[in-house]
Amino acid sequence: MAKYSIGVDYGSLSGRAVLVNVETGEEICSSVLEYPHAVMSETLPDGTPLGVDWALQHPQDYLDVLSHTIPDVLKQSGVSPDDVVGVGIDFTACTALPVTKDGTPLCFLDEFKSNPHAYVKMWKHHAAQKYANMLNAKAEEMGETFLARYGGKISSEWYVPKIWQICEEAPEVYDTMAYFVEAADWIPWMLTGNYTRNSCTAGYKAMWSKKEGYPSKEFFKALNPKLENMVDEKIGCPVTPLGSKAGEINEKAAAMTGLKVGTAVAVGNVDAHVCVPAVKIDGPGKMLAIMGTSTCHILMGTEEKIAPGMCGVVEDGVMPGYFGYEAGQSCCGDHFAWFINNCLPKDYYDAAEAAGMNIHKFLRSKAEKLKVGESGLVALDWWNGNRSVLVDVDLTGMILGMTLLTKPEEIYRALIEATAYGTRKIIENFEQHGVPVDEFYASGGISQKDPMTMQIYADVIKKPIKIAGSTQGPALGSAIFGAVAGGAFKDCFEGARVMGNLKDTVYTPIPENSAVYDKLYAEYEKLHDYFGRGENDVMKRLKKIKLEAKGLA
Amino acid sequence: MAKYSIGVDYGSLSGRAVLVNVETGEEICSSVLEYPHAVMSETLPDGTPLGVDWALQHPQDYLDVLSHTIPDVLKQSGVSPDDVVGVGIDFTACTALPVTKDGTPLCFLDEFKSNPHAYVKMWKHHAAQKYANMLNAKAEEMGETFLARYGGKISSEWYVPKIWQICEEAPEVYDTMAYFVEAADWIPWMLTGNYTRNSCTAGYKAMWSKKEGYPSKEFFKALNPKLENMVDEKIGCPVTPLGSKAGEINEKAAAMTGLKVGTAVAVGNVDAHVCVPAVKIDGPGKMLAIMGTSTCHILMGTEEKIAPGMCGVVEDGVMPGYFGYEAGQSCCGDHFAWFINNCLPKDYYDAAEAAGMNIHKFLRSKAEKLKVGESGLVALDWWNGNRSVLVDVDLTGMILGMTLLTKPEEIYRALIEATAYGTRKIIENFEQHGVPVDEFYASGGISQKDPMTMQIYADVIKKPIKIAGSTQGPALGSAIFGAVAGGAFKDCFEGARVMGNLKDTVYTPIPENSAVYDKLYAEYEKLHDYFGRGENDVMKRLKKIKLEAKGLA
Repeated sequence: MAKYSIGVDYGSLSGRAVLVNVETGEEICSSVLEYPHAVMSETLPDGTPLGVDWALQHPQDYLDVLSHTIPDVLKQSGVSPDDVVGVGIDFTACTALPVTKDGTPLCFLDEFKSNPHAYVKMWKHHAAQKYANMLNAKAEEMGETFLARYGGKISSEWYVPKIWQICEEAPEVYDTMAYFVEAADWIPWMLTGNYTRNSCTAGYKAMWSKKEGYPSKEFFKALNPKLENMVDEKIGCPVTPLGSKAGEINEKAAAMTGLKVGTAVAVGNVDAHVCVPAVKIDGPGKMLAIMGTSTCHILMGTEEKIAPGMCGVVEDGVMPGYFGYEAGQSCCGDHFAWFINNCLPKDYYDAAEAAGMNIHKFLRSKAEKLKVGESGLVALDWWNGNRSVLVDVDLTGMILGMTLLTKPEEIYRALIEATAYGTRKIIENFEQHGVPVDEFYASGGISQKDPMTMQIYADVIKKPIKIAGSTQGPALGSAIFGAVAGGAFKDCFEGARVMGNLKDTVYTPIPENSAVYDKLYAEYEKLHDYFGRGENDVMKRLKKIKLEAKGLA
Repeated sequence: MAKYSIGVDYGSLSGRAVLVNVETGEEICSSVLEYPHAVMSETLPDGTPLGVDWALQHPQDYLDVLSHTIPDVLKQSGVSPDDVVGVGIDFTACTALPVTKDGTPLCFLDEFKSNPHAYVKMWKHHAAQKYANMLNAKAEEMGETFLARYGGKISSEWYVPKIWQICEEAPEVYDTMAYFVEAADWIPWMLTGNYTRNSCTAGYKAMWSKKEGYPSKEFFKALNPKLENMVDEKIGCPVTPLGSKAGEINEKAAAMTGLKVGTAVAVGNVDAHVCVPAVKIDGPGKMLAIMGTSTCHILMGTEEKIAPGMCGVVEDGVMPGYFGYEAGQSCCGDHFAWFINNCLPKDYYDAAEAAGMNIHKFLRSKAEKLKVGESGLVALDWWNGNRSVLVDVDLTGMILGMTLLTKPEEIYRALIEATAYGTRKIIENFEQHGVPVDEFYASGGISQKDPMTMQIYADVIKKPIKIAGSTQGPALGSAIFGAVAGGAFKDCFEGARVMGNLKDTVYTPIPENSAVYDKLYAEYEKLHDYFGRGENDVMKRLKKIKLEAKGLA
């Protein structure tokens, strides 16, 4: 009798369950629920207004995903709950909520339902920026060693700025909550009754390290005396490595999901990191780029190295026993969409319509005919700042080489090439700092839909690119961890090899193209350092002038 | 009884006559003839094919302008030829043709009518580029002092590269022609029977200087031994200062034009330079910018100074008794048109249509609402290379500061601002090298139609900008020189004061805007020098890679 596992992937706007055959990795069926409350950025459900840069979610939506999608995949597939060996989940991060001792979200309590701080703070809640700034300043001042593990800067999207914001702006919430828990950990808790903290979010988002633990009480005290014992009081839970079991489906969860009591549940994971086993990666030196609106790079190594500008290095952060490295590019598909929405002339739309092609495809049909270097253009891919390796949100885009004959498809291609140069920079940065990158894998929408871009990437980075076989990478990855938790494999490495999935297509570098891209990349690097490393801070000065012009400085 | 003069302006595609009242400067009427042969860039009229970068014209078209437009303005106005005191003409330059001793174009002769070199070589005939390159190399090698008067470089558009091309590629034409004459001098010759050479084209296009004459025989001999006596043999005529009389209408010309035998004809002039008196400029320190697809800057000074990167300094080159300075920007309106044709998204066209506005006006209505500095953008206006002050055709465009929120109108405005910074650079360059610029005037299409751009220029250069009163500036200027030749004024300065014409509108710098533009200009300057003066020659390297990619290098 075939065995199955279920992966549940919580995205920014919906949750998706996928039922997977554990012997073949075949994705049998899936079910999606759009969150009824979506993202709350202006008001709470009762009309309470939110501030600038807020982004909240409603935890009931997450429970609805469980009660809707898991029964749905069981029903669609006709698979018996007896044959489901395990469940795994992944979440956006840091997406966290204040809960009581038994895990009840504070926003479920009448007294807190109009308090914005009682809801889930989503990853893209940016209203804690000032706390992040203060945290970074204080950490530098105190010479905190953890900073180096995060490329020198803690993001406002992460755990401590968020909890610090609650502590300062809603002390009643801070005092009442038993824990401020990652949604990635809250779901396994709700399924099993066991409160765990996974090593991925703890490490990448809450500054935990297997060797050094969390930052010191002295450090937290220096932020605010009330935070001195924050780790004990509001995290209050040891860290469990990825690939472990969080517990088993309890009766309440069985009633909610239709799964059998006792079904294994894996510890939570993050939507990017969980994709790694889904592409069969089972060890160090294999970089996965998840290419969507932005790009996230995940890589494992055998030692802890400090590569400047990475997003983080976390032991057990991707798969147990290895150091997980993360880097990122703030802008990938967003970049190309900006171009299409803001820069593409009318006659291109008309021509695309006449040719019966969608505009992306039409533009690609022109851009892919260009020879490498033919446009004479080079761009810096910083339309949304630079995450790795410069860690600087105040950098902006640049393009040069335009003449009166420059065509839109040339600019479009130059923007794509710029993101490829950015990826090469990240690879070389890891390699220069002792973290080898021997193979390259890509998942996410662009990897599936855009062969031109993938070929450009292969030519630029000069490595073959293997492509994810699943368009539901996070859910597949979660199903792998669910199967591992259920004992279907001896470890997640075996799970990756059996259930992971790659396309037959491999994008192989074309040496003639790579030779020209080497020259263009040299130009990119020179400009990257000139504008990015302080030789000419024009981008920052222009941002300052811009804020002054808008009366915001 | 009122007196009149006629100005005839020969442009790239048509010739225009304007009849002007010499006491009031009122433009009574005008008449235009499109050249029947337009620009010949692919074949001669008999089908003989032309090479790459050729641009020829047919001299019969120029005569047709005289026989059509002058009778037409006389007829339209009802003015008697007795009341026309003089005629002036201006031409594009260097636009030159080989003629016999009596001025007959060689292409009128049966034996030469299939020889491309027998026709008029237009200013934008670029097929003599290699001769220009060799000329510049040789002049540098021989330490020729004239180079400094032309910003260090002689253009392929000028006289000597063109005649050298004939000498090398069509010795039969070179040997047969009596003269290789500027069209600006050929027309007065055809009207009067007198062959003159005006100081403007001689100086700006044929490297003549009042003090030093033409380059030496040794220099010409070094180019090609046959050119040793080129000045005596093929120019063969002394130089006459602007503001002089070339002669009087002869019988043949009277029959052609309907003018009276004996009517004064001014020496020829160039279409840009002739605009100076048309805006009432009557002395040094007053810069005129003629703003169209590109921009030409004309300025007079009292001394010969060497400002690097100017197009030329010529004694008597603009008005007699002064040193005329010329500078230029290779791209102005062309820049904005490129943007509108290549970068403006469909929904802007749709919105403009819905608002019943033309697209330029619609875009301006958005761009003019932006506060100075609000876009966070800065550009280098080098889409067509840089004429002044860097004299480098291999420079290309650059823009930086883009974010995912950058809008098309912000990019559009940044391109306009970049051209204004380029103008400020030209002004400051003259001032730094001892040529004062006290006042600023603008003529040409942009000055008439685009108040936003003119205000930006005033704010950037921090000088009030006076605007030409006539949209037919060259023809009005020619009419002024015609009136001067006919004795209506004691000199062209008086003619300028009486007949020149300015709008009431003056664009006055807004100090708050100028304060921000000072900061933005500082950024422009830094980038200008970084990319333009050899610190980072990325633009040139990209051009090389581009040529290689296209198989052209």
